[in-house]
Amino acid sequence: MCCVSTDTPVPRTRLSPEQRRAQLLDLGVRLLATRSIDELSIDLLAEEAGISRGLLYHYFGNKQDFHEAVMRWAAAALISQTAPPVEGDPEHRLRVSVAAYVDYVDANYEGYLSLVRGAASGSASMREIYEEALSALTDRMFEEDPHGNLIPDTPAARLVARGWAAMAEDVVLRWKARPEGVSREELLHLVTASLPALAQLLPPPTE
Amino acid sequence: MCCVSTDTPVPRTRLSPEQRRAQLLDLGVRLLATRSIDELSIDLLAEEAGISRGLLYHYFGNKQDFHEAVMRWAAAALISQTAPPVEGDPEHRLRVSVAAYVDYVDANYEGYLSLVRGAASGSASMREIYEEALSALTDRMFEEDPHGNLIPDTPAARLVARGWAAMAEDVVLRWKARPEGVSREELLHLVTASLPALAQLLPPPTE
Repeated sequence: MCCVSTDTPVPRTRLSPEQRRAQLLDLGVRLLATRSIDELSIDLLAEEAGISRGLLYHYFGNKQDFHEAVMRWAAAALISQTAPPVEGDPEHRLRVSVAAYVDYVDANYEGYLSLVRGAASGSASMREIYEEALSALTDRMFEEDPHGNLIPDTPAARLVARGWAAMAEDVVLRWKARPEGVSREELLHLVTASLPALAQLLPPPTE
Repeated sequence: MCCVSTDTPVPRTRLSPEQRRAQLLDLGVRLLATRSIDELSIDLLAEEAGISRGLLYHYFGNKQDFHEAVMRWAAAALISQTAPPVEGDPEHRLRVSVAAYVDYVDANYEGYLSLVRGAASGSASMREIYEEALSALTDRMFEEDPHGNLIPDTPAARLVARGWAAMAEDVVLRWKARPEGVSREELLHLVTASLPALAQLLPPPTE
């Protein structure tokens, strides 16, 4: 809020419990940039936040609840950061959204990998968080759009949209791990242009 | 081998240790059609095979080794069952291979899900088995083909081939779980035609 260096002690901002919780979750997500969710302990968060373990347990119950809360927070951040702009033709807006997704994976690599792996592992709640995020990301394509939709709303198209998202996730994660030989621009083009290319393979809607 | 009912006791075929091990792994993979790898116990296999737990431990060491051996066996079966035919144009051969993949997932659903989930979970050896299988499946596309290749061999194309495989896996698993509204033919067309459609988006090879 304030950026002037001063010797006068600044009164500590009094946060509501919700604000404090949000602040801790933001910190948790930031810590996930360079470590997996399993490496994110209550101890580490307490140390980084400068508060007691006891207070953290007050906010998050137990380690499992803490991990789920951080994952939900990370998924919500992913959804909001990749929201397409309101204006522009559908392909332009998809490209902006894909670019934001690449940036998100770039900045939150380890945490995002945790979300993906947690989803595929045995944990039903982690899978649910992941599937909810994926639904939110892909359902956008099927919202009524005054500029026209990139893909019709049919069962086959829903399947293709999820498949496209799985491909985008795989391609971006592999590229992040080994970017040699493929520029960021080429990656963005491949991921963005593949959705309309796949939509053209769909059977015509029958009704 | 024999289908005539007889009262004469048939001498039990003497198998080599390798043959016996293969027989037990075949049984393990068959049991995975309807259960996850975590539900496949040494006890269950021993009971189904009609042999002692001790003998199974003789063949497979411990439960972890047993699970890995069954997963490797399942991955090898997947690779061999989806081998494209030698003759025909590339798109026809891809279609035959994709159809065999759909059949494989159909017949081995729970076990295949275990392979996919095991890969994404924390287990490094399960991930390795999965990645090896995936490499084998996608590297085929880049082998020199007298009929021409569907996709050039560039870093971007390798990325797209893996992404296509991730999409195919996602789409086929979702379709198997909820097939409503999409016929098997439509599914085969979508998965098969998407590879050349994606290849068209690749930047031209530079050399």
